[in-house]
Amino acid sequence: MNYNPTMNNSEALVVFSGGQDSTTCLYWAKAHFNEVRALTFIYGQKHVKEVECARSIADKAGVRLDVMEVPLIGSLARNSLTDSTLPMDRQQHGTDVPNTFVPGRNLFFLSIAAVRARELGINHIVAGVSQTDFSGYPDCRDAFIKSLNVTLDLAMDSQFVLHTPLMWLDKAETWRLADTLGVMDIVRNETLTCYNGIIGDGCGDCPACRLRREGLEKYLEEKYGKER
Amino acid sequence: MNYNPTMNNSEALVVFSGGQDSTTCLYWAKAHFNEVRALTFIYGQKHVKEVECARSIADKAGVRLDVMEVPLIGSLARNSLTDSTLPMDRQQHGTDVPNTFVPGRNLFFLSIAAVRARELGINHIVAGVSQTDFSGYPDCRDAFIKSLNVTLDLAMDSQFVLHTPLMWLDKAETWRLADTLGVMDIVRNETLTCYNGIIGDGCGDCPACRLRREGLEKYLEEKYGKER
Repeated sequence: MNYNPTMNNSEALVVFSGGQDSTTCLYWAKAHFNEVRALTFIYGQKHVKEVECARSIADKAGVRLDVMEVPLIGSLARNSLTDSTLPMDRQQHGTDVPNTFVPGRNLFFLSIAAVRARELGINHIVAGVSQTDFSGYPDCRDAFIKSLNVTLDLAMDSQFVLHTPLMWLDKAETWRLADTLGVMDIVRNETLTCYNGIIGDGCGDCPACRLRREGLEKYLEEKYGKER
Repeated sequence: MNYNPTMNNSEALVVFSGGQDSTTCLYWAKAHFNEVRALTFIYGQKHVKEVECARSIADKAGVRLDVMEVPLIGSLARNSLTDSTLPMDRQQHGTDVPNTFVPGRNLFFLSIAAVRARELGINHIVAGVSQTDFSGYPDCRDAFIKSLNVTLDLAMDSQFVLHTPLMWLDKAETWRLADTLGVMDIVRNETLTCYNGIIGDGCGDCPACRLRREGLEKYLEEKYGKER
């Protein structure tokens, strides 16, 4: 384990779902690290198509992808992403966490990624979480990620660095980052963000699609002006 | 979720392996909470006899036990507790973590327990970790537990209370606690701590047995004097 991790000459492990955010992070990692690996989880989500997307994008990016089955995460607590008998909350109700929240999901994803990274001698872990458009999920907030970073270091006597390049970007700014990285087309056409499992622009109607589309429209308007 | 957890009139979830430490914690919890539940993990350890022990002790204590399979934990990284091709470190080598360390084990156990507790409306979680005789395992230290407590609260927007009644006790003091709780015989004869899978006083030779026996001898000497 390297106790003085630098970014140059280093390897990073990206927690990768094949969605807009983690695909942008995958290319961000490729731009910042010498070597990049990716890790995808199968956790009982309804849309295993996500995994096909992840494989295809990782192939194209020349990144080695490990796929890990963790059915436990979907089964621990009732939620509408892994339980098709539960109708999906379309928006947040007051201060309640929406029922698309899979409790502990990012906690488990990042903890598993850290154990894997330690085995591989990797300090740097990259995840596409964002507090800006966090949809009421507590495990997307910056304070959680920082607390988890300390917890992981203490748990394994290691020095991990959790990178969250999208933490303070809204969706329009995330589109801008993809554009800057030269992967606007890949992110727009080949990623899967939609809760209803439709690749690219998606169903257009679920909360994830609306967030994605509004961000894209805002970014394109800023880039080309209203008269594009 | 109760945001002002008290101990009276409360329920606790005990992370329970059927060993000396967690059995002492189970009875400690019974003495301090109105209701107690327990959670045992099957994670690829060589000695599934542990689980039989756990069931039998929980039955006798009148505590409802859930058993959860998490093979992932044993498979993430190579260690001598789940991989029988790897000879077990008999003692700590310098500052290295011994190869009986299962990386992330307590991190996953306590995180899973927290998600389960949240589903059950339970704030209090009890675990038998101890920094005093921690055998070089970083995830038994107090700073890790406290950091994890904050991380879990942030991850799920909850207020968990991680109780570790053995944290600052050495093995002799843990025997004293069992005695005070009136369960000296149960802990001595029915728990499984031994790395070689032998119930009660164990093989007498592995690191866990030596620690347990030395603690017992010290406690009995303190209680009855040298001439017992």
